Amino acid sequence: MSKRSVAVLAATGVVGQRYVSMLSEHPFFEVTAVAGQESAGKRYREAVKSRGEFRFSEEVGDLVIKPTRPEAFDADLVFSPLPTEAAVEIEPRFAKHGLKTITDASPHRMERDVPLIIPEVNPDHLSLIDWQRKRRGWSGFLVATPNCTAAGLTLLLKPLADLLTIRRVIVSTMQAVSGAGYPGVPSLDILDNVIPYIKNEEEKMEEETTKMLGSLAKGGVTPSRFRVSAMCHRVSTTDGHMESAYIEVGERVDLDEVKAALRKFRGVPQELNLPSAPTNPIIVMDEEDRPQVKLDRYAGSVPGMSVVVGRIRRGLDSKSFRVTLLSHNTIRGAAGSTILTGELMQSKGLLG
Amino acid sequence: MSKRSVAVLAATGVVGQRYVSMLSEHPFFEVTAVAGQESAGKRYREAVKSRGEFRFSEEVGDLVIKPTRPEAFDADLVFSPLPTEAAVEIEPRFAKHGLKTITDASPHRMERDVPLIIPEVNPDHLSLIDWQRKRRGWSGFLVATPNCTAAGLTLLLKPLADLLTIRRVIVSTMQAVSGAGYPGVPSLDILDNVIPYIKNEEEKMEEETTKMLGSLAKGGVTPSRFRVSAMCHRVSTTDGHMESAYIEVGERVDLDEVKAALRKFRGVPQELNLPSAPTNPIIVMDEEDRPQVKLDRYAGSVPGMSVVVGRIRRGLDSKSFRVTLLSHNTIRGAAGSTILTGELMQSKGLLG
Amino acid sequence: MSKRSVAVLAATGVVGQRYVSMLSEHPFFEVTAVAGQESAGKRYREAVKSRGEFRFSEEVGDLVIKPTRPEAFDADLVFSPLPTEAAVEIEPRFAKHGLKTITDASPHRMERDVPLIIPEVNPDHLSLIDWQRKRRGWSGFLVATPNCTAAGLTLLLKPLADLLTIRRVIVSTMQAVSGAGYPGVPSLDILDNVIPYIKNEEEKMEEETTKMLGSLAKGGVTPSRFRVSAMCHRVSTTDGHMESAYIEVGERVDLDEVKAALRKFRGVPQELNLPSAPTNPIIVMDEEDRPQVKLDRYAGSVPGMSVVVGRIRRGLDSKSFRVTLLSHNTIRGAAGSTILTGELMQSKGLLG
Amino acid sequence: MSKRSVAVLAATGVVGQRYVSMLSEHPFFEVTAVAGQESAGKRYREAVKSRGEFRFSEEVGDLVIKPTRPEAFDADLVFSPLPTEAAVEIEPRFAKHGLKTITDASPHRMERDVPLIIPEVNPDHLSLIDWQRKRRGWSGFLVATPNCTAAGLTLLLKPLADLLTIRRVIVSTMQAVSGAGYPGVPSLDILDNVIPYIKNEEEKMEEETTKMLGSLAKGGVTPSRFRVSAMCHRVSTTDGHMESAYIEVGERVDLDEVKAALRKFRGVPQELNLPSAPTNPIIVMDEEDRPQVKLDRYAGSVPGMSVVVGRIRRGLDSKSFRVTLLSHNTIRGAAGSTILTGELMQSKGLLG
Repeated sequence: MSKRSVAVLAATGVVGQRYVSMLSEHPFFEVTAVAGQESAGKRYREAVKSRGEFRFSEEVGDLVIKPTRPEAFDADLVFSPLPTEAAVEIEPRFAKHGLKTITDASPHRMERDVPLIIPEVNPDHLSLIDWQRKRRGWSGFLVATPNCTAAGLTLLLKPLADLLTIRRVIVSTMQAVSGAGYPGVPSLDILDNVIPYIKNEEEKMEEETTKMLGSLAKGGVTPSRFRVSAMCHRVSTTDGHMESAYIEVGERVDLDEVKAALRKFRGVPQELNLPSAPTNPIIVMDEEDRPQVKLDRYAGSVPGMSVVVGRIRRGLDSKSFRVTLLSHNTIRGAAGSTILTGELMQSKGLLG
Repeated sequence: MSKRSVAVLAATGVVGQRYVSMLSEHPFFEVTAVAGQESAGKRYREAVKSRGEFRFSEEVGDLVIKPTRPEAFDADLVFSPLPTEAAVEIEPRFAKHGLKTITDASPHRMERDVPLIIPEVNPDHLSLIDWQRKRRGWSGFLVATPNCTAAGLTLLLKPLADLLTIRRVIVSTMQAVSGAGYPGVPSLDILDNVIPYIKNEEEKMEEETTKMLGSLAKGGVTPSRFRVSAMCHRVSTTDGHMESAYIEVGERVDLDEVKAALRKFRGVPQELNLPSAPTNPIIVMDEEDRPQVKLDRYAGSVPGMSVVVGRIRRGLDSKSFRVTLLSHNTIRGAAGSTILTGELMQSKGLLG
Repeated sequence: MSKRSVAVLAATGVVGQRYVSMLSEHPFFEVTAVAGQESAGKRYREAVKSRGEFRFSEEVGDLVIKPTRPEAFDADLVFSPLPTEAAVEIEPRFAKHGLKTITDASPHRMERDVPLIIPEVNPDHLSLIDWQRKRRGWSGFLVATPNCTAAGLTLLLKPLADLLTIRRVIVSTMQAVSGAGYPGVPSLDILDNVIPYIKNEEEKMEEETTKMLGSLAKGGVTPSRFRVSAMCHRVSTTDGHMESAYIEVGERVDLDEVKAALRKFRGVPQELNLPSAPTNPIIVMDEEDRPQVKLDRYAGSVPGMSVVVGRIRRGLDSKSFRVTLLSHNTIRGAAGSTILTGELMQSKGLLG
Repeated sequence: MSKRSVAVLAATGVVGQRYVSMLSEHPFFEVTAVAGQESAGKRYREAVKSRGEFRFSEEVGDLVIKPTRPEAFDADLVFSPLPTEAAVEIEPRFAKHGLKTITDASPHRMERDVPLIIPEVNPDHLSLIDWQRKRRGWSGFLVATPNCTAAGLTLLLKPLADLLTIRRVIVSTMQAVSGAGYPGVPSLDILDNVIPYIKNEEEKMEEETTKMLGSLAKGGVTPSRFRVSAMCHRVSTTDGHMESAYIEVGERVDLDEVKAALRKFRGVPQELNLPSAPTNPIIVMDEEDRPQVKLDRYAGSVPGMSVVVGRIRRGLDSKSFRVTLLSHNTIRGAAGSTILTGELMQSKGLLG
């Protein structure tokens, strides 16, 4: 099988560079085009020179960056980590123009006919694509992946929701600065500081999680019946979002059962043995002081793609428990999720 | 009135230095003795030279550090920030020897006849002293102040408990490294990291809060009826503990009423106009991104003594709400609380 | 004496806020006007609300921010911490319009008829003002203060140049992020990093130092005969620039003599007892591990105005030695230096 | 060829773990024994569990940690990252007992008959081993590798010394906290701070560099004729030491020639194609803001083994120039250097 050609939008940003890096030597995909705003016209190598944290092939380095217009592209798949404002109008234009587009930007995630996907959680939601194309008259389509904090939380909740009747989730996050992109958070704001506010983040966590754990119905997705309360904080870490959750359920909880369910959880990507699928989507640690951002953010068989959880312990009554989770915000929370979604679609024949 | 003589134990530690600094030029108290283990025999000036973050008077600098034995002391009041292990045996010896001792160490806080005090919250609990002396046959006494995270949370909950029927408090903390003392947290452990575990911290928050908000009864204090779930995290800030709480109550909540109650809250220290009493024990911020550790930890009329709260907003239903609070861990959470307790006792004639 | 009215340009920036804070309750000056670009038309209180690290009076909080045009101002003195690009054209317009302007921006520092002043070092250079006004036909004037790293180094070198024949200075800096203003350095760039480059910084240190230590001559200032090599680095500290210097001189060095000269150094501001003049412009520490950024940046009688030096030790031969110095970049390196210059001019009758 | 058996002392420390990790799947060596003090008797897996930053094989995880006594060991080669005090007496005992020992500890480095080796710089110094064994009557031997800052600097200076007549090197360092081991630097000491002092570090840099660049002579090594002045600083980075050097030479400098010499430099390890030898021992960057600690510490074909240099520019006259260098302190500055030395000795038949 020859590789699918893929284009990466906003390819010089923090997440865009992560995409290009993760797609180098990918068995399914080959980056044949990159887009950027201010850097259009330059070679990719030149445009990312100033930071250059990530690696890319000679071929990608030679690519001339294109402006972010659909007419300029002819690829089997488009990955979009566009900034929010840009994504609002540009992404639909790509889909309308016939391009199969997967985005980790936020504006379209909650639209009724846009599948919001974590491949291990709700691959069936991809069936919304047909309705979307029909409804909008698009020859391409738009699929979304969730906010970086929702990604980790939802992956944790999926096997829990299969086991228990979740009633409420009360979660507090400690998020890395890379989540804000580049230049993002000024150092004067975060050195020796915690900021208890990230614009729109709590709303995203609360809504997206219940959409992804909801069920397909006429007219879109019926959200899950439980609700999520999120309190989001920025701390001075570089990569890796930590979340501590208090979970209330409808039945008495057996913590060993919970751990076992998390450990044995596998999804369609694991069954299909997709290239970016970690052997264990969820890694459970028993040490009392883990997971830690610095030590565990790359744990697992595909670095950055597993959610690492620990400190599983009782809540205030027998029907509640507490969990701390760590997930890599620019991998499982952005580029990795989206690439894995692309792999899933390819395997399912959705790329034509 | 001539000043009361006070002794500071563990006077060369992080909190001990904070005590000495806060007691310089104090209207009620004068440091006439300091104790230390390894530094005994040296002058105070010499012993703290290597860091010297805090200021002290010439007289205190000249003091020769004494070993931590009660026989060596003859002071009206003793402040003890001893490390946990040392406090277990040493503090009772001081009290037995006739010394009036106030500690911010943890071992004796939950003992039935030991008052655990925040002066604005439960000054009436000081009446346990009589029972303590009688029961133990001590000529001195031992009074405790709470864990640094419990201090901030309890101060917040006091006016709330006066206004509403608190059912449950689910709180997640982000704590500064100074909370672990010196040398404390290795830099390799905390740079670019969050550690979701602080030994015994969660238990302390959960128990101490309900003791302080409990009521005096025969045989000690009956804890408050609501319960607290704490998830504690260490982050890389120097001073100032942040806590985000989800609070469930028995009635519909009017957030404006909540804010008003917090803003107008005053305690006995404010009525008595004690030197270390901040005008507002609780400062409420309306900005969406406050309080912040770096900007707000010294807010208020007595730096480090006010709890700063913000992000007051609805929970998942009408009977719950969310709050973020910041309190200075070595001031309101340690030295400041204890000194304020000493001031309260002096004003009430409890120092003889 | 009634106070002089002063205006602060770029008053909402990091340094501008520092100015306003330092000028509150100033015995000579009263802030009667503030300028800003995007914030023009708002009240000062509103415009700085989002950070609010610094304090200011009710009166200043009420001031409506003016656009940065000289016609809008009628003050006895103007302080300008304008960003470089803005300063190029705007500052001369203020001076031409009749306003007495002191700037800590860089563009005009090296112009022949612009005095570049550290009040303790070269107050006599203020006599260039007359020539400047005549030459340019200005009714006001423009006086500059140096780059933040040059400020500390030059203050150290002044008493050394009085004592010894300096031949060469080889200096390496470790600079705080506040030196880059706000938003300034992205946190992704500086967490766990050192950046060995700050645009134009090395040139400024090398040139400005020799201008300030030069002598008045026909046609401006003849630079000092020694030269400076600077290697500048950004590190992740908030405030306070550290510099380690290797100094070569023409004669054998007696380190005790060097220390004594630094300790006894006093300038005109100390003689005149100016409000912002620290008792000791240079503080010499003998501890082997000092000065330290966090512990010593506010040392001395006027916080942030003293240069703190230590680790004075031999170089590779008897005619060289090494020194480490710390100076507060936004106080001695910016607002403080400029205000002290204003105080000096007021005392000398140069404000009319 | 079957693998050589190697023992790692202090195997649970920061550097010890690095050794074990780098030796897993090594083509020449196999870790068959590990030693530790407090952890003796535990399995290696258990003992390092609490941090676990590094990977190791199942077999190594199963090893029972031995006490640090030579009688307990029977290996072809011993790697010692012992702490200074322990190394003083223990290492000679290992060598006397017949064990071939390579150390990155400091106590024996400057002894006349101890080769101090960087494999690319002075492999010929290994011939001191014969003299050492004869002189001390040892059946084993002791070979040392340099201090972490001296390692990077000396590697840079080697090709320069081949090209030019170095007169003086004036260097200032910014060093990571991992250089102090674990627990090492308290976080309270380094957050928002620079510490201008690391015990004995400057002396080591100054002496070791000239020994390694010296020439073999009767009675040991005659040091190089040039001298080094070092000013060492601790900054809040995790790994990677930055050094900025001012270099004076005897002839006019052509910077292009300097860069070319650095780029084409290869040593014996490159000729022998040793497993831990990077293709380019020195990587020269042309970007004006590189090397940076975070971006470049793992640059090159063997991560952490190349010295990355940049900002090569003129000094104050034509016979001087400036360079900034970055080297990974626990790899090229410790475990990596020592393992490469072991590989060199194996290739040269020095392991018997």
